[in-house]
Amino acid sequence: MTQFSPLYEGKAKIIYATSDPDILLAEFKDDATAFNAQKRGSIQNKGVMNCAIASHLFQYLAAQGIPNHFIAQVAPNKMHMRRVEIIPLEVVVRNRAAGSLCRQTGLPLGLELNPPLVEFYLKNDDLGDPLLTGDRLRLLQIATDEEVAKIREMALAVNTHLSRFFAECGITLVDFKLEFGRSRSGEILLADEISPDSCRLWNQDESDPEKRILDKDRFRQDLGAIEDAYALVMQRVLAHSVR
Amino acid sequence: MTQFSPLYEGKAKIIYATSDPDILLAEFKDDATAFNAQKRGSIQNKGVMNCAIASHLFQYLAAQGIPNHFIAQVAPNKMHMRRVEIIPLEVVVRNRAAGSLCRQTGLPLGLELNPPLVEFYLKNDDLGDPLLTGDRLRLLQIATDEEVAKIREMALAVNTHLSRFFAECGITLVDFKLEFGRSRSGEILLADEISPDSCRLWNQDESDPEKRILDKDRFRQDLGAIEDAYALVMQRVLAHSVR
Repeated sequence: MTQFSPLYEGKAKIIYATSDPDILLAEFKDDATAFNAQKRGSIQNKGVMNCAIASHLFQYLAAQGIPNHFIAQVAPNKMHMRRVEIIPLEVVVRNRAAGSLCRQTGLPLGLELNPPLVEFYLKNDDLGDPLLTGDRLRLLQIATDEEVAKIREMALAVNTHLSRFFAECGITLVDFKLEFGRSRSGEILLADEISPDSCRLWNQDESDPEKRILDKDRFRQDLGAIEDAYALVMQRVLAHSVR
Repeated sequence: MTQFSPLYEGKAKIIYATSDPDILLAEFKDDATAFNAQKRGSIQNKGVMNCAIASHLFQYLAAQGIPNHFIAQVAPNKMHMRRVEIIPLEVVVRNRAAGSLCRQTGLPLGLELNPPLVEFYLKNDDLGDPLLTGDRLRLLQIATDEEVAKIREMALAVNTHLSRFFAECGITLVDFKLEFGRSRSGEILLADEISPDSCRLWNQDESDPEKRILDKDRFRQDLGAIEDAYALVMQRVLAHSVR
């Protein structure tokens, strides 16, 4: 399939049109950013590793009945995906307290959240991706009430399936960020990517609170051995059945 | 009544115990702070003006059936109030978009919000008084679900009465912050103060977006004539019946 010029270049991916108007190509980059792109760097081989992890997880989730935009991995760092209109929300599911939840509320790192928390942030770099209350979400008219309810239900279902998947890999799924899109027919599809860039993942074989970190927090906090952590995640994810 | 040593000194008031364990004395200060006390200054005569305004508004709200901690104004800058256990929430009611709502969501200044927005912020200077979603509010166990429902209902009732009161003074009540406390018997009482420090108030006689501001935004934004604005509010509030 012919590859056209970039439609959009984000912090971690470049999106291209293809000769099929319903199919886009995502190229995963090694670039890494954090803190709303105030911190920038590169993680060697990240594009290839995240593309492999995301491709595997999207196939797994499809097999569990979660509709998503993944079509096929077409190169080590490239995937074909259905074109959707991205809903400008970052949907965060939290099984344990970490990151901004701890900074903003004073809750201790690692506190179990039962039931898990589903939080909506406005996807807007200029505004710093602010947390939205239910009322603010309605006020901004980003999605209909029905869409928000559907997204929340899908996010919780993704959490159930991914928590089990990662537990079977010896990894705790602490929290993760999802994005959703509308297909041309108005169906809500899981979109974007699922990778150590967008998840907090703790190695259950390690009790040391720094050594156990297998995700972009190693980059955010300058903990080193970032490539090794991503490689460990990739190895365990790819060894798990997609069903 | 004997005045004891300070129990607590806040940014705008000093709270003293009295010889009656159920009664506290609040002394209103001229000190002004903004942006979580990063900006500090003084507004001449503010203590006296805010004490007079708050005393009048608390009496008005009591007459409308809103239980609050006010007992009596006992000096130009001092009031007696019932001792309550303050619930560490800043409850903000918004009739129009302004301040942090605009900065965080990109909504235009002055946009009418119908129905009004009730928002909960954690009262915690170290954490920067963060906005709370419903889930975070529950997670922090600051108040029971019943208390939160009661506080929301009271905040909306305060808004109905104060919006009418200020409209009759030729002033638009844009938004305001309330605090609530628990009495010894567990009753929820409106507490703290209601003044141009805690409300956004726009003069309906002025169309100029800077000249119309009659509240602490004049201090936050260095607009000058702060004392005149507070004095105008005081004059109109005191001229309005407390019933």
